[in-house]
Amino acid sequence: MKDLQKICVLGMGLLGSSVSMSVLRSMPRVKVVGYSHRRSTRQKARRLEAASQIASTLAEAVKDADLVILATPIQTFEQIFCQIAPFVKPGAVITDVGSTKALVHRWASKNLPRSVYFAGSHPIAGSEKRGVEFARDDLLSGARCILTSTASTNRSALAMLRRFWTALGCRVEVMTPARHDRIFAMVSHLPHITAAALINANNLNDLKCAGRGFMDASRIASGPENVWADILLTNRKNCEKGIALLIRELNKARSALRTGEQKKVENLLSRARAKRDVLIRYKMRKGELF
Amino acid sequence: MKDLQKICVLGMGLLGSSVSMSVLRSMPRVKVVGYSHRRSTRQKARRLEAASQIASTLAEAVKDADLVILATPIQTFEQIFCQIAPFVKPGAVITDVGSTKALVHRWASKNLPRSVYFAGSHPIAGSEKRGVEFARDDLLSGARCILTSTASTNRSALAMLRRFWTALGCRVEVMTPARHDRIFAMVSHLPHITAAALINANNLNDLKCAGRGFMDASRIASGPENVWADILLTNRKNCEKGIALLIRELNKARSALRTGEQKKVENLLSRARAKRDVLIRYKMRKGELF
Repeated sequence: MKDLQKICVLGMGLLGSSVSMSVLRSMPRVKVVGYSHRRSTRQKARRLEAASQIASTLAEAVKDADLVILATPIQTFEQIFCQIAPFVKPGAVITDVGSTKALVHRWASKNLPRSVYFAGSHPIAGSEKRGVEFARDDLLSGARCILTSTASTNRSALAMLRRFWTALGCRVEVMTPARHDRIFAMVSHLPHITAAALINANNLNDLKCAGRGFMDASRIASGPENVWADILLTNRKNCEKGIALLIRELNKARSALRTGEQKKVENLLSRARAKRDVLIRYKMRKGELF
Repeated sequence: MKDLQKICVLGMGLLGSSVSMSVLRSMPRVKVVGYSHRRSTRQKARRLEAASQIASTLAEAVKDADLVILATPIQTFEQIFCQIAPFVKPGAVITDVGSTKALVHRWASKNLPRSVYFAGSHPIAGSEKRGVEFARDDLLSGARCILTSTASTNRSALAMLRRFWTALGCRVEVMTPARHDRIFAMVSHLPHITAAALINANNLNDLKCAGRGFMDASRIASGPENVWADILLTNRKNCEKGIALLIRELNKARSALRTGEQKKVENLLSRARAKRDVLIRYKMRKGELF
C-alpha cells in the first residue's frame, strides 16, 4: 500500500485497536496514530502499544493522515465529522467500522469537506468482550468486510479501501448502505434483540436448568448494551421490520402447535434446518467457519 | 448398584446408545440389553458394541430387566408402555429420557401394570447430531438430570433412579412433571422454535453475511426435525405460552426502538446481559460450562 503513510484510528476499543494492531503487523512501514477521548484508554493503548502513537486531540490525530478510520460509537460520527473537518488533509480517505451505514453516509456527505472522500467499512469481526485489552492483531484475518458506496462515492477511494482491508486479511464485498442496513438488521441486529428477549422472557431460577443450547442461543446478549443500543438505534426502521418478520414466523409456529399437526411443525423445523445446512456448507467453502 | 443386574434400553439413537455405553463403562457387572425397531440400527449398534446384547423384540429386551429406559420418540411411549406391559418383571423400575414429562406420567399410570414403578428422567445432554454412531460413553458426565415424580411415585424407585444417574456422572434434581415441562418450554423448546423462526425469517442470500453471532444463535435449529416436533407437540400448551411471552418481549424492544430513547433500549439489553452474567457465574460454579 504505497499510497498510505499515515493512518489514523479514532476510538481505541476492541475493534479500533484490533484494526490498528493489524496494520502494525501487516504494513510495518505505515504509521498508525490512535486517539481516544478518554485519558485512561489513551494510557492503556500506549502501555499495550496498540498504535505507533496515541494522540491526545482529534486535530493532532487526523493531521496528515492518508486514511482516517472512525471506530467510536456510531452516534458520535456526525459530531466527529464536524470536529475533524477543519484538520483533515485534502485527498484523505475517511471511513468507519460501524455496524450500520445509511445514517453514516448521510452525515459524511453533510459534514465532511468536499476535498476528502468517504466510503463506509464494516468488518464482520468482534467479540462480546470489549476494550483495547481484548484487541488482537488477527481479529480481522479471514473476516468478511463490507464496503458501502453510493452513486457519489469516489471510485479510487473505494479501490484504496478494498486494497487496505484485503491487506489485513479480509474478504471484501461492496454494496449500498441501504442494502447493508437491511441485511444486517436481519442477520445481526434482530438476532441480538431476540437473544435479549429470550433471556428477558425467562426468570433466573428457571434459567438454572438451561443447557448448552440456550447458552449458545443467548451468547450475543452478553455484548455491551451501549454499543448495541447504538447499533439498533441507528438502524431503527430495519430492526422494527425485522421484529415484525420474526413475530410472523413465531405465530406460524404457534398456530402449527395449536392444530397439533406433526407435519406442519416438522415442515417449519425442516425448512430451517435445511437452510442452515446450506449456509454451513457455504461458510465452510468460504473458510468462514471458525 | 447392587440392585441392578440387567438394564434394558429401548431405542438406540444418540441418547439411548450413550446411556447404554455409559452404563457399560461405569457398571461393568451390569448387563445392558438394547433394542431398536429398525433392523439397520440394531446391526449398527451390534457392530459398535453399544450394548452387551441387542434384542430383536421388545419382549426379549425387557424380560428380567430391573430397569427399563425408554429412549425412543416421546410420542411412541404410550404404545410401548402397552406393548411391554405383559413382559416387564414385577418390581421393575421404568423410566425414559424424553424431554417432556407430563404426558409421559399420564401414559405410564394408564398403561403400565401396578406391579412396576415409573418415574421420569431427563438427562440434559445431547447434540444436534443423531444416531448411535455419534453416541459417547461420557455424554452424561457432568450433565444435569431431572427426575420427575408425582404424589403417586414410588419413593424407592425414585431413590434407585437417583443412584443410577449419579453413578453415570449426572447431578440429579427432582421436580414435578408439570414444573419440568413449564421450565423446559422456556429454556429449551422456545429457544429451538426461535432459532428456527430466525432462520425462516431470513432469505438464504442475506444469510451469507451472517457472522459467528448468527451461527451460534441458530445452532440448535440444526437438530433433527422429527425429534423436535415430537418434543414440541408433547408440550404444546407450554410452548404456546412461551411464544406469547417472547412476542411480548419483542414488542417491548420494538416500541423502545420506535420511541428512539437510548435509555429504554439500553435498559432492555442490560437487563438481559446482567441476567446472563449471573447465569454464567452459576453455571461455572456448578461446572456446567462446557
